[in-house]
Amino acid sequence: MQKPLPAKGTRDFGPLQIYKRNYILDIIKENFTKYGYFPLETPSFEKTSTLLGKYGYEGERLIFKILKSGNFLNGINPAKLNFEDVSNLANKICDKALKYDLTVPFARYVSQNFNQLIFPFKRSQIQNVWRADKPQKGRFREFLQCDADVIGSKSMMQEIEFIYLFDNVFNDLHLNGCIIKLNNRKLLSGLCEILDCQDKFSILVNQLDKLDKVESKKIKDNLKIKGFSSNQIDSIFDLIAKSKNISSNMDYFKNFFEKSTIGSQGLRELEFILNYFSKQKLSISSLVFDMSLARGIDYYTGVIFEVVQKNKSFGSIAGGGRYDDLTEIFGVNDTSGIGISFGLDRIFLTLDELKLFPEFKNKMIKVLFTNFGTDFTEDIIKFTSAFRNAGVISDFYPDFIPLKKQLKYANQKEIPFVILYGEEEKKSKIFTLKHMKSGDQEKLSFDQLISKLKNG
Amino acid sequence: MQKPLPAKGTRDFGPLQIYKRNYILDIIKENFTKYGYFPLETPSFEKTSTLLGKYGYEGERLIFKILKSGNFLNGINPAKLNFEDVSNLANKICDKALKYDLTVPFARYVSQNFNQLIFPFKRSQIQNVWRADKPQKGRFREFLQCDADVIGSKSMMQEIEFIYLFDNVFNDLHLNGCIIKLNNRKLLSGLCEILDCQDKFSILVNQLDKLDKVESKKIKDNLKIKGFSSNQIDSIFDLIAKSKNISSNMDYFKNFFEKSTIGSQGLRELEFILNYFSKQKLSISSLVFDMSLARGIDYYTGVIFEVVQKNKSFGSIAGGGRYDDLTEIFGVNDTSGIGISFGLDRIFLTLDELKLFPEFKNKMIKVLFTNFGTDFTEDIIKFTSAFRNAGVISDFYPDFIPLKKQLKYANQKEIPFVILYGEEEKKSKIFTLKHMKSGDQEKLSFDQLISKLKNG
Repeated sequence: MQKPLPAKGTRDFGPLQIYKRNYILDIIKENFTKYGYFPLETPSFEKTSTLLGKYGYEGERLIFKILKSGNFLNGINPAKLNFEDVSNLANKICDKALKYDLTVPFARYVSQNFNQLIFPFKRSQIQNVWRADKPQKGRFREFLQCDADVIGSKSMMQEIEFIYLFDNVFNDLHLNGCIIKLNNRKLLSGLCEILDCQDKFSILVNQLDKLDKVESKKIKDNLKIKGFSSNQIDSIFDLIAKSKNISSNMDYFKNFFEKSTIGSQGLRELEFILNYFSKQKLSISSLVFDMSLARGIDYYTGVIFEVVQKNKSFGSIAGGGRYDDLTEIFGVNDTSGIGISFGLDRIFLTLDELKLFPEFKNKMIKVLFTNFGTDFTEDIIKFTSAFRNAGVISDFYPDFIPLKKQLKYANQKEIPFVILYGEEEKKSKIFTLKHMKSGDQEKLSFDQLISKLKNG
Repeated sequence: MQKPLPAKGTRDFGPLQIYKRNYILDIIKENFTKYGYFPLETPSFEKTSTLLGKYGYEGERLIFKILKSGNFLNGINPAKLNFEDVSNLANKICDKALKYDLTVPFARYVSQNFNQLIFPFKRSQIQNVWRADKPQKGRFREFLQCDADVIGSKSMMQEIEFIYLFDNVFNDLHLNGCIIKLNNRKLLSGLCEILDCQDKFSILVNQLDKLDKVESKKIKDNLKIKGFSSNQIDSIFDLIAKSKNISSNMDYFKNFFEKSTIGSQGLRELEFILNYFSKQKLSISSLVFDMSLARGIDYYTGVIFEVVQKNKSFGSIAGGGRYDDLTEIFGVNDTSGIGISFGLDRIFLTLDELKLFPEFKNKMIKVLFTNFGTDFTEDIIKFTSAFRNAGVISDFYPDFIPLKKQLKYANQKEIPFVILYGEEEKKSKIFTLKHMKSGDQEKLSFDQLISKLKNG
């Protein structure tokens, strides 16, 4: 019989992976709480009407649709089905879909509960999302997103709060060398306005977004092909170069963006943030303005962030930005928001690579009672139970098999101590404790055992 | 525009519900760890081939199937489709399905990783499952299961361990008055053997399983309709009545089951457990033999459990049993196992009803900095950040609006303290702390504030 496998692009997680993931998640959650981002959980699937039309053509193709239960052809005349229009057909026989991100279900929640919510409304959300992407290293069809958003305020204090939040989380993870990249979509809009290529804003964003994976020569060629002039391209890349040393070039930027209202607005927002952090220090991260940061998400309208780690490059480990019209899709207007997201899988890879995970000895079995047959069964269950109640993670071997095999089991499970409890021990009430690593044995009373195992 | 709603039978969870659920889950997880049940997580969906043919006709109808991505009709000739055979058609256009329980994916995992696993293999698993059931009070289409299983040992020590585990979890939840009901499928088999109605074993199990919802008169009638004789029915209910006072009736039971090998075996297993717990006390639960306990799950073959709470009856809050052939479905033989499951939703209802949840003040915002305009913005972000780093959950109001409205916001969010920081406070570096409940105000230095809010 062939071994059954998990579905393509999905993963099983064993204990160590779960402990490591939870180590990261607990730190993120703790900080979300500290900052007042209360948790929300939405269902794994939504009505298709909630999800469709929200992610653009490319995104929509990647949504997993769930077949109607029962007779999914109910009310459909097969003779009238158009088998060429597969997408339309799918929407007829599916009425639910797995969530593609946390943002659209969140917007659905806000719109649904608008009158009960207190604004500014802050929430965090840590849940799985599903995408029918081609699986590859670090990209899965089921993965966890860790988001925090606040909606209902345009205050730039929120931008500053999120920069602190990034810094706190990565500081708590001991992940030195984080760079928080900063840009503003308004500067990119202003740039297009000034260079008179507003119609090509999306193309510019799309190309800049690839700059960390593709060399700039190639991006310049692409922009040329897409209709940007050499002058425009030179201006763009000149500004990008100057952005990396903004403290010397602020006057140049002010001058440059003077001609654009939205550009000047973006620059004032940038200055507010840079000015604040010129006086206040972050604990572990450096904050860097980078005019080439674009973020590939449609709905951003203001400040955008991205966090990378200096030494290990698995791409960005967190990101976010301000959006003005997100809940509009569900009929709620004028609720500017800003949100960030931590990339669990990439943070995991980075910590693993840099050996920054703690050990999880407090989750492992400390001691195993070996089994010398039915005469001792009741006692060893009783003792194991007493150990557990005393806070010592312990177990017994459930069957009477040769001791050698039981010791092998303890070794395989990396249990550091075993207890031998046979005829002699039962009589004397003195237990034999065996240290698996050294092979040393010592004789201890029950209370001595507990106190040794609790501390040792 | 109509408000968008979640899909039928699914729920959003807000902060308080999440804290309450996590309170229960943390206690379950902690005990799973203490007992050496290491966590496993499997994907939300599996290949349909993994899930189909495992749950019987009734179960299989409730599986949510996921449409193939892209052109789901690829390789299918529409002219040859049989629109009458909807279930077959569904399996052609769907290759994945949401998991229906944790057990089958677990069996898939064991079979897949058989050579790497160390047996006896203990694992816990706390994850969502999905069922296309008709939603009703307490029954949802997406819900969390909390399972622990050990496979690879036939030792009855495992049964005893699980009874302790039930008792520990409910003790930690302060849920007094739990009754752990105990039976053995072997006794039910033996009973059918002795009454010469082995062909009706499943019918008997099915009917007994309804005894807690339907009055016994009705069950007796049902059994009659299904072909049981009056004598058989009398014997069954006589044995059920006697089972509730097993300490006086053990000899009767021994006598009764003498004629059946499997029945006698079941009785010895029962005696082992009852004998153990006649000497060892449980902390919060009473252990009760109940011959009418049947459990509606096909694969149980030995001891079965169910836990109910004496005062609040939302049905069973936990259950489980031994199964001998579960991984056989994936080609792995002779791996007897036993598993239990906690019913999160029912435990939640019970604790809520009995007011046994703790408060979650340590998750709530303790203090809000009010906002007196741009002159104070930088300071209040800075102070809030310092408060958070000192472990005080705090927030600022992000916009400069009338103080009255800011105080209303604090009240709505049940924030117990606000800080007034205006011209005077900025000059004197002495803050005004307002107690929202009493309206009292006091003047404090920064350090006094922190120490007061950390402890108060």
